[in-house]
Amino acid sequence: MPKKTARAFAPATVANVGPGFDVFGFALAGAGDTVEARRAERPGARLVRVEGDGGHLPRSGPHCVVTVVAQAMLRAARARFGAELYLTKGLPLGSGLGSSAASAAATAMAVNALLTRPYGKMDLVGFARLGEKAACGTPHADNVAPAISGGFTLLTFQEPLEIMPLPSPPRWWVAIAHPHLELPTRQARAALRRSVPRCSLTANVGAASGLVAALYTGNLKLFGRALMGDTVVEPVRAKLIRGYAAVKAAALANGAAGLSISGAGPSVFAVAGTRAAAERTGRAMRQTWRSQGVDADILISRFGAPGTQLI
Amino acid sequence: MPKKTARAFAPATVANVGPGFDVFGFALAGAGDTVEARRAERPGARLVRVEGDGGHLPRSGPHCVVTVVAQAMLRAARARFGAELYLTKGLPLGSGLGSSAASAAATAMAVNALLTRPYGKMDLVGFARLGEKAACGTPHADNVAPAISGGFTLLTFQEPLEIMPLPSPPRWWVAIAHPHLELPTRQARAALRRSVPRCSLTANVGAASGLVAALYTGNLKLFGRALMGDTVVEPVRAKLIRGYAAVKAAALANGAAGLSISGAGPSVFAVAGTRAAAERTGRAMRQTWRSQGVDADILISRFGAPGTQLI
Repeated sequence: MPKKTARAFAPATVANVGPGFDVFGFALAGAGDTVEARRAERPGARLVRVEGDGGHLPRSGPHCVVTVVAQAMLRAARARFGAELYLTKGLPLGSGLGSSAASAAATAMAVNALLTRPYGKMDLVGFARLGEKAACGTPHADNVAPAISGGFTLLTFQEPLEIMPLPSPPRWWVAIAHPHLELPTRQARAALRRSVPRCSLTANVGAASGLVAALYTGNLKLFGRALMGDTVVEPVRAKLIRGYAAVKAAALANGAAGLSISGAGPSVFAVAGTRAAAERTGRAMRQTWRSQGVDADILISRFGAPGTQLI
Repeated sequence: MPKKTARAFAPATVANVGPGFDVFGFALAGAGDTVEARRAERPGARLVRVEGDGGHLPRSGPHCVVTVVAQAMLRAARARFGAELYLTKGLPLGSGLGSSAASAAATAMAVNALLTRPYGKMDLVGFARLGEKAACGTPHADNVAPAISGGFTLLTFQEPLEIMPLPSPPRWWVAIAHPHLELPTRQARAALRRSVPRCSLTANVGAASGLVAALYTGNLKLFGRALMGDTVVEPVRAKLIRGYAAVKAAALANGAAGLSISGAGPSVFAVAGTRAAAERTGRAMRQTWRSQGVDADILISRFGAPGTQLI
């Protein structure tokens, strides 16, 4: 039964995940974006109100994530009505925590509830990717896939896109630190080389395979080491994040099994075996950044939280 | 209790395994090399007799796999005795079935039985790698690891080497075809590019991760598709193997879930869900090669056979 009004909450996500550049991602609990969609007589999608973005997001046009996703869905569904959209940002922009993906995922889920014949989850990922394209130019799915389905996701194949849920060991915790540093996704992308030496391929395939095995066996130590086995992305991007090496060392000295960059940065995430260890890790990361004159927000989350949901 | 004489059998192995270049490998049943080691008063390792190599293998010197491995072990163990070695080749040379690895693994296991304080399996892999270096110049471990430990192995990290056994779904079967074509490992290696585009990294990491997930979940169809998700090695090496595309198509049309090149080729292997399907696949591969004027030997094996054993 289609609704006249629907609200959806989509969580923050960590993409890339060490050796799994463009391939791995997982959902976080406790932070995300909310989108309310209201059926309107006038066709088309309009973003009526945005809260929490400091006025930085476009309200319309080809770079407006919310309207791009909603418009594509209404058109594909041949809807005879339109949608008015209300976005509440709970995630900071450009943080590496899947901010645009959360907006896109929440939009897709909320608009879907207005449709007479709603789409399945895989289709919603397809629509939400259009929001990523609107935000940064490429329709990457490594944030929107875990944002929509929750847990830890593997993009097994890119074309056509195929998503596989991997196990999220229920006792693991994550400490995320978002330092108040500027690192535009464009700059983080540009820093990567367009080709990698074959030995890096071997190293990353080995580490990524170990990471998958660690998820199936619940081996946190292996997960942490595999996470840090990335030879392609972390070595390049770490240099763009002030204090990265010191923060990583502090996290590992305070109970984290591993640490890497979240998305394109500057946020980082560390995995730990208990909530207490994750909290200790979070405090150590914040203190280390503060000693360098950088403020950082800390989020503590279970590893692999639920995906986008109607609320 | 150290023995005066010991014989070890080491199985054929498939290395590379689709997207897992230099990382994945698994053992085959029904074919392999046997080495007998006899304690001798005179120090040092001597290869006394070789059967089944057509006279092609070196009997001594730095390219003799058997004596290089045995000598390294005797020296490391500070043995006051020597070893006389008898090698029976059950594997064709340069076939892509881990022929040198089988000789190296069988030597390591047989000589180990002569030692007062024998080494553990991981150490044996380390010694057997020296045999790979003697044979082809690089101490790669992707054949010796499964040859010694059996099953399916992942080289999670290269330096220092770390090996992880992955599950081998017990009902899967493999059909291996060894066409009588010349494809020196050196040529197959030289055909590979020294660097790969970043999108190939993403594709291979995704496919390799899917392959690992398929082993844990016993999903043969996913395994087959992930196997064929390699974008780096197969596209290049397939061109060096006459009839490859036709053989692959024939295998897939006759019940195989996937096919790729074994090691550096020219052998290929296909996975199937039953023994009957593997046998049908094997016949189809042989017929296809025969129709192109190429003879091929077929081996049918369970997926993930036992490793090197004393006999």
